[in-house]
Amino acid sequence: MTQELRAVEWTGNALSLIDQTVLPHATEIRRIDGVDALVDAVQRLVVRGAPAIGAAGAYGVALAMIEGEREGRSRDEVLAAVARVRAARPTAVNLMVCVDRVMTRFDEGLDAVLAEAAAVQREDIGANRAMGAYGADWLVERTGVDRPLRILTHCNTGALATAGWGTALGVIRELHARGLLEAVYVDETRPLLQGSRLTAWELAQEGITHYVQADGAAAGTILSGRVDAAIVGADRIAANGDVANKVGTVGVALACADAGIPFLVAAPTTTVDLSTASGADIHIELRGEDEVLEWAGVRTAPPGSRGHNPAFDVTPARLVTGLVTERGVLEVSAGEVPADEVSA
Amino acid sequence: MTQELRAVEWTGNALSLIDQTVLPHATEIRRIDGVDALVDAVQRLVVRGAPAIGAAGAYGVALAMIEGEREGRSRDEVLAAVARVRAARPTAVNLMVCVDRVMTRFDEGLDAVLAEAAAVQREDIGANRAMGAYGADWLVERTGVDRPLRILTHCNTGALATAGWGTALGVIRELHARGLLEAVYVDETRPLLQGSRLTAWELAQEGITHYVQADGAAAGTILSGRVDAAIVGADRIAANGDVANKVGTVGVALACADAGIPFLVAAPTTTVDLSTASGADIHIELRGEDEVLEWAGVRTAPPGSRGHNPAFDVTPARLVTGLVTERGVLEVSAGEVPADEVSA
Repeated sequence: MTQELRAVEWTGNALSLIDQTVLPHATEIRRIDGVDALVDAVQRLVVRGAPAIGAAGAYGVALAMIEGEREGRSRDEVLAAVARVRAARPTAVNLMVCVDRVMTRFDEGLDAVLAEAAAVQREDIGANRAMGAYGADWLVERTGVDRPLRILTHCNTGALATAGWGTALGVIRELHARGLLEAVYVDETRPLLQGSRLTAWELAQEGITHYVQADGAAAGTILSGRVDAAIVGADRIAANGDVANKVGTVGVALACADAGIPFLVAAPTTTVDLSTASGADIHIELRGEDEVLEWAGVRTAPPGSRGHNPAFDVTPARLVTGLVTERGVLEVSAGEVPADEVSA
Repeated sequence: MTQELRAVEWTGNALSLIDQTVLPHATEIRRIDGVDALVDAVQRLVVRGAPAIGAAGAYGVALAMIEGEREGRSRDEVLAAVARVRAARPTAVNLMVCVDRVMTRFDEGLDAVLAEAAAVQREDIGANRAMGAYGADWLVERTGVDRPLRILTHCNTGALATAGWGTALGVIRELHARGLLEAVYVDETRPLLQGSRLTAWELAQEGITHYVQADGAAAGTILSGRVDAAIVGADRIAANGDVANKVGTVGVALACADAGIPFLVAAPTTTVDLSTASGADIHIELRGEDEVLEWAGVRTAPPGSRGHNPAFDVTPARLVTGLVTERGVLEVSAGEVPADEVSA
């Protein structure tokens, strides 16, 4: 992916989103010029990935203001629209953090709000670059191998999931840039295949050797010594270091712990929610059953079957070897918890 | 599924197989009247599940004899055909065990071979019934809960995977028959969806409450306390108790160990291969990359992506709480290994 291709881009009076539901078969840009369209795009995962949703939400405040002006809405109506953006998905904390940050400038008017949203996006890219460097340094030292690394990742945490560059995939890009990456094992990440559709697409664009595998293969890949470490992103990190991320993440963490290889979480500090004490306090979004009962609109399970479709799971802090943010690496399972290190 | 519907049935001069690649949308019977067709059916998973493959292989010896007679083949040519049946899939040991057992009567002629193959099938059903009862008894005692159980399972181990009734699914059927089953969480089992297509279909036929979930959801389902135990089948069990089974199994076992709930393997003693010392000696079949790069013939991953597609993984004995065979339950992680208990 060239850096010019942005998952989330402000075009002056609307948001431009790469439709991530149709990648890699088609690269279609959706123009979003109102709050209803934005909430729909967030819920249908046209835009997904906690930092990318955060950036979209930041610009969503501007959209609510522009739409309110156009439609002659009251201040309360505009605030209600902002609240709908803020609540579009319940698990990722970045969305709420970014909306709240931009809202501190609401009373200064549209230009101030847009400047703040642009700052959110710019700072996210900077944070990704920083965590890429910190994460790569830490992995090289921690794994102690003197050859290019083999890394497993889950879901998509790249340029598509962020304002640009990527969190976990940013670390992987950094290893590649340093000539320290041999290959990436990519969990396909059912039910929506963000791994095989999006991560594989980003890696293919970069010419990085990668192998797509069924999510069920992850534990065997780790236990059989095929990879040196796993790196994932996060949707919300509790004060004690528990991590909510894409469903399937905790299985990767359990296998890494059993194999004795590092399990690294890469996320900006905006993902840390100090008001959430532990993973038990994180609301896990249950998505529609059809996502696991159907494929591309065709039913795969029998008519009588129900589905269980949590979007996320919680990885306990004891399984998180490292948490890399734009400030450095916390060794969480060794006791360095976000509550002590990250100020809100 | 009614008991009359058999995955593998001898019709007098040919094998009749339910085509498991088109379930649950269609119930199509494939008539197999030669060794080429049988090997193809085994490799394409028209028939799958270690005990069902074993039964099909047993009748495959008869097929080779009938075909040899029809085509005027030499004894060596017939033996070569039998060898091709025996080697059609490398990981499941039942196929080899069943072919070898039937071959002990090869020199007595076709009627003796057919009688032995029928005995293989009949005994497998009896073994399944026995392990269902032993497994249910053990689970009730081991879990110690005084309400109907919630069970997680992976892949398909039911009537379709065996000569009838089922191994892991046989234990689940037995719990249901006793009124001791609340619900089953069914891993969809990518890449070929034996869970959502076949297990869900069998459970729906029985009216058993079940929830299909992405394989990545299994660990979270277990760690969040939604299930009381997991039960799976096996394709090969080493002398030390290591278990090769459908890819994704070891991830379920790791989560059960972490959550402190029982991980039960249900398999007939024909699955135990005392000549295999440990899981490290089990050859894991790598299947075609397209199974993970495509869906129903439509490419989901980008053109440049490679796939990693092991059909099985190995669960170390230390994670196997119980192994139920037709003889009873071995508590493998507590040191009761097959080498001490199962005579070849």
